This record gives sequence, C-alpha cells and structure tokens, in this order.
Amino acid sequence: MLTFWQDYPEIQNKLKDVQALMIERLKINNQEIEVALQKFASRGGKMVRPALFLLFAGIVPNGSKDEEKLIKIAASLEMLHSATLIHDDIIDDSPLRRGMPSVESQFGKDVAVYAGDFVYTVYFELLIETMNGTSFVAKNAQSMKRILQGELTQMQSAFDKNNTARRYMKAISGKTAELLSLSCLEGVYFAGGDKKLQHSARKIGRAIGLAFQVYDDILNFTVGLDEADKPILTDFRQGIYTLPLLLAREVNEAAIAPYLEAPEKLSRQECLDLAELVTELGGITGSLLVAGRLTELALNEIKKLPESPNRQILEEATQILLERNY
Amino acid sequence: MLTFWQDYPEIQNKLKDVQALMIERLKINNQEIEVALQKFASRGGKMVRPALFLLFAGIVPNGSKDEEKLIKIAASLEMLHSATLIHDDIIDDSPLRRGMPSVESQFGKDVAVYAGDFVYTVYFELLIETMNGTSFVAKNAQSMKRILQGELTQMQSAFDKNNTARRYMKAISGKTAELLSLSCLEGVYFAGGDKKLQHSARKIGRAIGLAFQVYDDILNFTVGLDEADKPILTDFRQGIYTLPLLLAREVNEAAIAPYLEAPEKLSRQECLDLAELVTELGGITGSLLVAGRLTELALNEIKKLPESPNRQILEEATQILLERNY
Repeated sequence: MLTFWQDYPEIQNKLKDVQALMIERLKINNQEIEVALQKFASRGGKMVRPALFLLFAGIVPNGSKDEEKLIKIAASLEMLHSATLIHDDIIDDSPLRRGMPSVESQFGKDVAVYAGDFVYTVYFELLIETMNGTSFVAKNAQSMKRILQGELTQMQSAFDKNNTARRYMKAISGKTAELLSLSCLEGVYFAGGDKKLQHSARKIGRAIGLAFQVYDDILNFTVGLDEADKPILTDFRQGIYTLPLLLAREVNEAAIAPYLEAPEKLSRQECLDLAELVTELGGITGSLLVAGRLTELALNEIKKLPESPNRQILEEATQILLERNY
Repeated sequence: MLTFWQDYPEIQNKLKDVQALMIERLKINNQEIEVALQKFASRGGKMVRPALFLLFAGIVPNGSKDEEKLIKIAASLEMLHSATLIHDDIIDDSPLRRGMPSVESQFGKDVAVYAGDFVYTVYFELLIETMNGTSFVAKNAQSMKRILQGELTQMQSAFDKNNTARRYMKAISGKTAELLSLSCLEGVYFAGGDKKLQHSARKIGRAIGLAFQVYDDILNFTVGLDEADKPILTDFRQGIYTLPLLLAREVNEAAIAPYLEAPEKLSRQECLDLAELVTELGGITGSLLVAGRLTELALNEIKKLPESPNRQILEEATQILLERNY
C-alpha cells in the first residue's frame, strides 16, 4: 500500500508515478494476464525497492534532475522484484499475494511461468532504455543471478535438518539483501553520486535487506497465533527453517528435533507449541538481536551521509520500515 | 546432435566452440541442476540458431574476424532458445527433451522454473558482454517478448475449436520464426554487413523459421504411426491444433469436429483414424505446399546473396534442414 508513505508526500507522489509507469508497461496480448499483472502492480505493496532508490537519489548533493529516467529505473527494480515473486509463488504454491490471489493460484502454474517471464522482459526493456552501455546492465544481470542463487539455496535447504544459521544468512543475502542493496546503489549512481557515496549506499541497502528479511521471518513465528482461522507458521510447514528456529535449535536440539520430522503435517496445536518453544529457547530474542544490530548498522551509516532533508526522511523511513509489532 | 553438421566441418567446429562456451557458463550453486543443464547443452540438438548465425556471419564480404565475440553471440541465441524450452516443458509436461528426461520431469516444476530463469540470466550476461550499448540489446528484448507472446497465443488457443490457420501462423511466427530471424540478422550485423544484407537475412530467417515449424507440425501427424509403443499425435492430444488439422477442418468441418470434443482422451486407434482423415482431407498436402513455398522463398533470397563458398553451404544447409521424411 502506498499509504505506507503517506507522511512523505514527495516520495509517495514519485511512487505513484512509478506505479503508473509499471501499469502502462504491463501490456500483453492476453487480457486476463494483463489485468492480473496490472492489478498486481497497482496493489504495489510498500514498494520498498523503488522507494529506497528514490530516497538515495535524493541524498546526492546537486543530484540528477532527470526525473523521467529515475522513475524508469525505480520501476525496473520493482519489475525485477515482481517477476521473482510471481515465479516464487509457483514454488511455494502460495494462494495469496498482497491480499489477492497469486497469479499462480488464479491462472495456474503454466500462465504464471510465462507471466513471470514477461515481467522479466519488461524489466530488461526498462534497463535498456535507461542504462544501455553502462556497467550497470551487467550489475543487474549479476544481481538477478544472485537472487536466483539465493532462492535455490533456500529451496535446496527446504526440509533439510542440517540447515544452519550461516546457510540461512547466505540464502537471504541473495534472496532479499541483494536487490535492496542494488536499489540503494543505483539511486546514488544515477543521481551522480561519487564512489564513496555509492559504497555507503550498497552497505546500507544490504543491512536493511538482511534486517528486513530477519524481521519478516520473526513475524512468521509471532503473528496470527491467536487468530484461529489463519494459517500459521506457513514457512516452517513448507520446510523453510528460518533464523528463529535455527537459533532455538542451537540451544536445545533434542527439543526441536521432533518437529522437523514432518513439518508439513503439524497440527495447529503443535504449531503453537513449537512457536512457544522457539520463544522459550530464545529464538525470537536472538533473531531480534541480529535484526536490531543490522538496523543499527544501517542507521549509523545513514548518519554519515551528507546532511540534507532527504537524509532525515531516509533515516525515518528505515526506522519505520524495520519497526514491526511482535 | 552436431553430427547433423558433419559434412560442414568448419561450421561443426565452431558449433563445438559454442557448446563448450555454453557448458562453461552454465555453472550454478546447485550441482544437480548444473549437471542437468550442462547435459542439456551437450546434447545440443541441431543448434539451428547458432548455426544460422554463423553461416550468415560467413557470407558477409570481408566480414568481422572477431571469432570470440561471434561465438559468444551464437551461444546467446542458443541460451535464449534453451531457456524457453525449459519453461515450455513445464507447460507441456513433457517427459522427454532431446532424448533425455526434461528438466521438469527430472527435477519437478519448481526447479525447472528457476533453472529456466537462470539460463535467461546467462543469456543476458552474454548479450551484455558482446553488444552492450548497441541497439541489438533492445532488439533481443523485443524478440524475447515476441517469443513469449507467440507461446501465449498458442496456449490461449489450446483446445479452442475456433482456432484458425491465421492464428496458427501468428503463433509460430512468434514462437519459432522470430528467433531464427534474429539469428540470421545478428549474423550479418555483427560481421559488419550492410542494411540491405541485414534485411535479406531477416527475411530468410523468418521464412526458414516458419517452414521449419510447419514441417515439424506435419511430422506430428505422420511419424511413429506404425510404432505401437510410441505416443502419437502428442501436440493434438494437448489441444494444440496445427496447420494440417486446421486445413483439413476447412475442407470438412463435420468430419473433424468429433475429434475436437475431447482430444486428450482419444484412443490410439482414434488417433490413427484422425491422422488418416487429416491426410485424406488434404491437410498434409496443403501444409507441405505452404512449407514448400516458404522454403522456396528462403532459397530464392539466398541465391541473391553475394556469391561465396559460404552462400553455397547456407543453401545446402537450408535444404537439408527443411528436408524431412514423411
């Protein structure tokens, strides 16, 4: 929801432009798919990637004013993200995405494969229009590869009792942090920021990305537990063992082990028991500590950026983005 | 199989280089997928797209001698083709591809989605390394889009009793002709050929592509009919109505109609009956006529190309490529 950005009308307005551009570009000779993709784009989520891109472009002293180009690049980042989401939903068999049926559940796997491929082509078109001839086309291809490798690492680790916190960090580093890092870096680069600023942007993006994912994975163990009609521990039951569980297991392997025998078959009560166990063993506290440290790292780096009103917004946005309810 | 090119050792050797490069690039942090993709690449099929690219590069008078670059571009075309095949096999549930289990049947849909995505990233890397900054990056994105739109047209038309020969031509124009046309065009362009030669190359590639696909679709109605252990009319039974059927239906709609009620449930005998009916109604002859005319069109254009030993090879290769057994 773009309401997430309602206190920052400048960013919110630019994100509306990004969204409008995405909807315009998602035209295809299949009306059903076109409507689904355009709806998908208009829901928009928080649009974290374009938002970070635009915020970082905004902190560059005397930065580029080529708004049209910046909006296109912002859209390219969200397109890449959307394409990976559409294909991820095939792997996860997700019924919902952004509160509406996923492309996969609505049209089946087959359409979802092509719909995702199509969004990739739109992404490439946007890249070509804005950065053909620069080294950033290659950087995008590299990021795309790392995102995929992150997804594959996660997929390979599914139901793997020997998954480790280290492997988890590697997976989310590709799956989430890579694209957030690229978003921040591109913001600085395309606004004309220098090497030093580019380096900080990458570092901040990576830290925000990791923190963002760890918080998200904590929520999977803490949210909806008292709402009887909602599925809980959805990741865990798909064999995706995230940080809270992995840290808890390090404390007491014997207690966690039985739950790893057939995660997909756990009853609701067993899920509640596991969530409690993970909390008792410090899995939540430990993960909050990790995420908190990453957030601090990001905020400290942000404080070193050149002073400007946009830096203030970036700082607040980072705090809001990483401020969740547990 | 590269044995297809055994009478043309120069092309065959270059195709071996293309294959070696593909295998080198298909490295990923998942050994199973890596092995599957590398095996896929080493089977290689006829490598029609890189072969046409190299043949057309060869007919340019005083053409580029930057072999390394040409091999990379040739590989990029085969990579794009491979990525689409891997995703197509998800849609078709194909058990086999090039005589071995398809990525989908070997590893499941999930892996196949990411494996295809990964091959797309390798394709983009090769593009970026060879043509970043030229208009051909955009041309590639455009072709990719057209190929997808062709696939979508075909998918939408599946089991559609109102599918027409016209819509069929539109689908194969995207699905097959687009990439063959791009292969020929890129061959001329990257060897340094002029606009006129580029135009001919595109035209020839398109005609070869259409003829190639029509012949392929004819084979689906004529091959394996007397081998009791082989599945026949595989496309038809998946609701893919190709030219032979569509032409036959134009002659006698009432006779064909019953077969379109539930194509996926036809018995072997009913398939044989249908194949006979399609032949009797002139569906095969009519399709052969279309394919033959397209082949002629390609050969006439080839004859107008600048005289050279490579033109001779191109002419022969086109004839061999489009010469099938019925």
